Amino acid sequence: MDCRIIKSPGENTLAILTRRKGSGQREPLEKPDAIGLVQGKLIEMICAADVAEKAVGVTVEDIRGSCPQNMIMLAIFGDTASVIAAIEEIKKKENNRKW
Amino acid sequence: MDCRIIKSPGENTLAILTRRKGSGQREPLEKPDAIGLVQGKLIEMICAADVAEKAVGVTVEDIRGSCPQNMIMLAIFGDTASVIAAIEEIKKKENNRKW
Amino acid sequence: MDCRIIKSPGENTLAILTRRKGSGQREPLEKPDAIGLVQGKLIEMICAADVAEKAVGVTVEDIRGSCPQNMIMLAIFGDTASVIAAIEEIKKKENNRKW
Amino acid sequence: MDCRIIKSPGENTLAILTRRKGSGQREPLEKPDAIGLVQGKLIEMICAADVAEKAVGVTVEDIRGSCPQNMIMLAIFGDTASVIAAIEEIKKKENNRKW
Amino acid sequence: MDCRIIKSPGENTLAILTRRKGSGQREPLEKPDAIGLVQGKLIEMICAADVAEKAVGVTVEDIRGSCPQNMIMLAIFGDTASVIAAIEEIKKKENNRKW
Amino acid sequence: MDCRIIKSPGENTLAILTRRKGSGQREPLEKPDAIGLVQGKLIEMICAADVAEKAVGVTVEDIRGSCPQNMIMLAIFGDTASVIAAIEEIKKKENNRKW
Repeated sequence: MDCRIIKSPGENTLAILTRRKGSGQREPLEKPDAIGLVQGKLIEMICAADVAEKAVGVTVEDIRGSCPQNMIMLAIFGDTASVIAAIEEIKKKENNRKW
Repeated sequence: MDCRIIKSPGENTLAILTRRKGSGQREPLEKPDAIGLVQGKLIEMICAADVAEKAVGVTVEDIRGSCPQNMIMLAIFGDTASVIAAIEEIKKKENNRKW
Repeated sequence: MDCRIIKSPGENTLAILTRRKGSGQREPLEKPDAIGLVQGKLIEMICAADVAEKAVGVTVEDIRGSCPQNMIMLAIFGDTASVIAAIEEIKKKENNRKW
Repeated sequence: MDCRIIKSPGENTLAILTRRKGSGQREPLEKPDAIGLVQGKLIEMICAADVAEKAVGVTVEDIRGSCPQNMIMLAIFGDTASVIAAIEEIKKKENNRKW
Repeated sequence: MDCRIIKSPGENTLAILTRRKGSGQREPLEKPDAIGLVQGKLIEMICAADVAEKAVGVTVEDIRGSCPQNMIMLAIFGDTASVIAAIEEIKKKENNRKW
Repeated sequence: MDCRIIKSPGENTLAILTRRKGSGQREPLEKPDAIGLVQGKLIEMICAADVAEKAVGVTVEDIRGSCPQNMIMLAIFGDTASVIAAIEEIKKKENNRKW
C-alpha cells in the first residue's frame, strides 16, 4: 500500500481527481488544504476508506481507474493535520491487523 | 487469497461497496455489524462464495471491478461472529481442498 | 491451469455464474449436482472446452471476465461423477499434448 | 508464443470462437476439420497472421479478448494437414526471424 | 517512474496525444517547443501533476489509457527549458519525499 | 521494446490493423511494401512515433488495444528500405537517450 500527501493542491490536480470520483458527483471538489492519496489492492483500500471515514476532519473519495466501476485509489481531503492523522491511522491499522 | 473483516463499517464504506455490487441492486445495503472481504482469483472466489452461502447468518455479494461483469472481491455481511465463522470456513476449505 | 469442483452448488453461486455466461442467455442455470471450474490462459480454456464438450453428461459454459467479450473461466455442469470425469480428461489431455 | 491444434472441434467450441471474432461477422463459422490456435503478444500474432494468410488451404481469424478492439488469440481454420503446416510455418518464421 | 522529453514534436505525435487527453477537449494541442512525458503509478502521476502545475511556463495534461477514465501518462507542454525544469523538479520531489 | 518488419503484408493482416487504427479512419490502408511494428510501454511508443514521423517515406499509425483510447502498438507503413531505416532510427534513439 502506497500513501502520499499533497499540500495546497493545484487546481488542475483537483480537476484530474474530480473527473475520477467514484461517487459520480461532477461539481468540482472544494479546494482543501491537503490531499492524502492511498493506492493499493481493492481489499486494502476498502479497509483504508473505513478507517479514514471514522477519522475526524476529513472527507473520503474513491478514485476510479480504467472504468467507472473500477476503484484504484483513495483520496482523503481536509486540513493538513487531519489528513496526516488519517493516513497515519490507516498505516497503523494496516500494520497491526490480525487477518 | 486475501481475507479481512471490517467491524461496524462506516456509511461511506458501505456506499463504495453498494456502487460495485454484482447483483445490480442499487438500494443501499442495510448496515451490518461486520463485513468480511475476500479477494483472490475468480476461481477461488466462486468457491468461497459457495462456502459462505452455506454458512449461517451471512449474506454474500460479489463486488465488481473495472467493468460490470468483472468480479474481483467477495463481501460477506452479517453479525460479527457469523462473518468471522464464514471467513474461517472459507480459509479451512481452501487449505484442505483436494483439487 | 487451475481446476476445482463444487458439489451441490448454492443458488447464489449459480446466480453469480449466470450473470457471467458468455452465451448471453439470462435464464438461471438449472441447478446441477456439481460444477467443475477451469481457469487458465484463453488458449488452454478453448482446448478444455472442446474436451468437455465431447465428454458424456456435462454442459459447458464460458464465464466472462471484465467485459462481455472476455472469457476467463470455464464452468462444467452435470452430475458429480460426469463432472469429475470431464475435469480429469481435461487434465490428462493438457499433460499429454504434443504441442 | 503458445500454439495448439484442435481436431474435429465441437459445436460449442466453435460457438465460443464465433462470439469473439474480430471481423465482427456473426454467422457461425463453417465446421472445419481442425483449428489451430496461436496466443502471444500482439506483435507476434500480427506476424503470425501474415504467415498463416500466405499459407495454403487455411482461413485466419483474430479472436478478441476483453473488449471488441482487443486481439488476444489467432484462430486458423482448415483441413488438418493445412492447419498443421501453417502452425509449423509460423513457428519456423518466429524462430528464424532476424528482428 | 519513467520520464522523457520530445523536442519539436511532430504533428502526428501531437495528434496521438490529443486523442487521449483526459480533459476531453478535442481541439488539437497548440504545437509546443517540447513535450515532457511521465509514466508511472497513478499515485505518482497525481503528485507529478501537482509539481508540474506549480512550475513556471508549462501546461499539464493527463493522457488516458485503455478507457476514458484511466490515466496512464502525464504530458507537460512548454518551451524546452521550462519542460526540462519541470521534469527535473518532479524527479527531485519524488526522490526526496518523506512518505 | 519489441520491433518487427512484415514484407509484402497480406490483405487480412492489413484488415486486422485497419480495425485497430487510433485515428479512427475506417477506409482500408493502402497496401504498403512493408510494415514495421513497434510494441512497448506507452511512453516508449510516443517517442518512437515522433522519430518515425520525422523519418522519410513512411506513414505512422497507432494501433489500439482493448479499448479505443488504448494504444499498444505502432505501425509504420512504407517501402521496405524506408521502414527498415525508420525502425533502426527508433532503436538507435532508444539506446542513446539521456533520459
